[in-house]
Amino acid sequence: MTGTLVLLRHGESEWNAKNLFTGWVDVDLTEKGRAEARRGGELLAEAGLRPDVVHTSVLRRAIRTSEIALHGCDRFWVDVRRSWRLNERHYGALQGKDKKQTLAEFGEEQFMLWRRSYDTPPPPLATDDAFSQFGDPRYAALPPEARPATECLKDVLGRALPYWYDAVVPDLRAGKTVLVAAHGNSLRALVKHLDGISDDDIAGLNIPTGIPLAYDLDGDLKPITAGGRYLDPQAAKESIEAVKNQGRK
Amino acid sequence: MTGTLVLLRHGESEWNAKNLFTGWVDVDLTEKGRAEARRGGELLAEAGLRPDVVHTSVLRRAIRTSEIALHGCDRFWVDVRRSWRLNERHYGALQGKDKKQTLAEFGEEQFMLWRRSYDTPPPPLATDDAFSQFGDPRYAALPPEARPATECLKDVLGRALPYWYDAVVPDLRAGKTVLVAAHGNSLRALVKHLDGISDDDIAGLNIPTGIPLAYDLDGDLKPITAGGRYLDPQAAKESIEAVKNQGRK
Repeated sequence: MTGTLVLLRHGESEWNAKNLFTGWVDVDLTEKGRAEARRGGELLAEAGLRPDVVHTSVLRRAIRTSEIALHGCDRFWVDVRRSWRLNERHYGALQGKDKKQTLAEFGEEQFMLWRRSYDTPPPPLATDDAFSQFGDPRYAALPPEARPATECLKDVLGRALPYWYDAVVPDLRAGKTVLVAAHGNSLRALVKHLDGISDDDIAGLNIPTGIPLAYDLDGDLKPITAGGRYLDPQAAKESIEAVKNQGRK
Repeated sequence: MTGTLVLLRHGESEWNAKNLFTGWVDVDLTEKGRAEARRGGELLAEAGLRPDVVHTSVLRRAIRTSEIALHGCDRFWVDVRRSWRLNERHYGALQGKDKKQTLAEFGEEQFMLWRRSYDTPPPPLATDDAFSQFGDPRYAALPPEARPATECLKDVLGRALPYWYDAVVPDLRAGKTVLVAAHGNSLRALVKHLDGISDDDIAGLNIPTGIPLAYDLDGDLKPITAGGRYLDPQAAKESIEAVKNQGRK
């Protein structure tokens, strides 16, 4: 029996609130973000979807989200796995930049290319940039050539898929309910893979924050229902609209 | 090179505050307990003792303590391992009972025997007791004969040692700084083993809450300094005095 996959995007972070590109910069949740995580835990409990294991990125906002949600559904004691392969897309030289200013400076076309094109990464981050993570112990074991300095969504899928196959799929094959607590773009990459979304169409897909997205999977790890099911469909719809308008406020 | 072991006893729980025997009943930290955990994280950061991996029980008060302390020293992203073998001593039929009432009802001698003797367990918990954990999914994989209904400290050491050898020691052998976030009695059992404390003398050993206790270990996993070192020795001394007076207020 194949288990159930539950994707959970972290709630509002300090830099979401400030409208800055975040990427691998390790900012925490805001109080609103924590409330979103609590709501995520409630939705899991109400749906009776109790994770047996959680996989997170190594970034604080996703880990905090997983901790709050798992306390909320009384599954704080489950197995925990983490990997940088579930990290948010590395936003390169845009990390720390204001989204609205970037839009004004580079124009709508370039802005949307960086934000949503499948295979155009932003300019790379300099290794001596204040937001470079090269001195971070989390990534110290990675040789330099394996440390991203910028990523497009295609790059994210490329580094997330090995973790999907090697760490997440075995848990699903064992029949577990598997929570993946991660980020807008690492989850978009997984959803693109699961639902077979084209390189063009993925640009239009946004994943709402804090609302668990459950997938029942068949024996080939394909979704039984395309697109899965949000545990609060109405809130998901409203949140997707809000994400679309990011960078424009 | 053998790594460094850091033991951390959870801070005040809701039932510590109410002066009730807790055991395997899964109560949360109080606000004071959370503050103790934050202080524990600060002490780790100040000492430059940054865990590479954390081992916890499956009880909320230890897990919450580990999460708060690891956020406090920026190591929230480290590997996480959990086991019921690090749980607090199962307090049998005393679970949920008031310590002061129990002292009055059974007298000083019996009270201290249950609390501190090495090999006298309290009466077992009935399987239909409100505080029985036999329906809990955390323990569902354990066959009935492996589920404790009461434990003395000797029992705790017996079930904790396999985890020590199989899960904690390999991390220490790999040179890691290993945080074990657990409970008064599961940590007393580990300390008894590490420091070679006699069955009689262990009765007089109390471990303070929220103050990391670090052990540097030699190649035989024996402490280089007997008793290890508390990261805040003065606070440890004061806390040990307070624990001694538990049940008498």
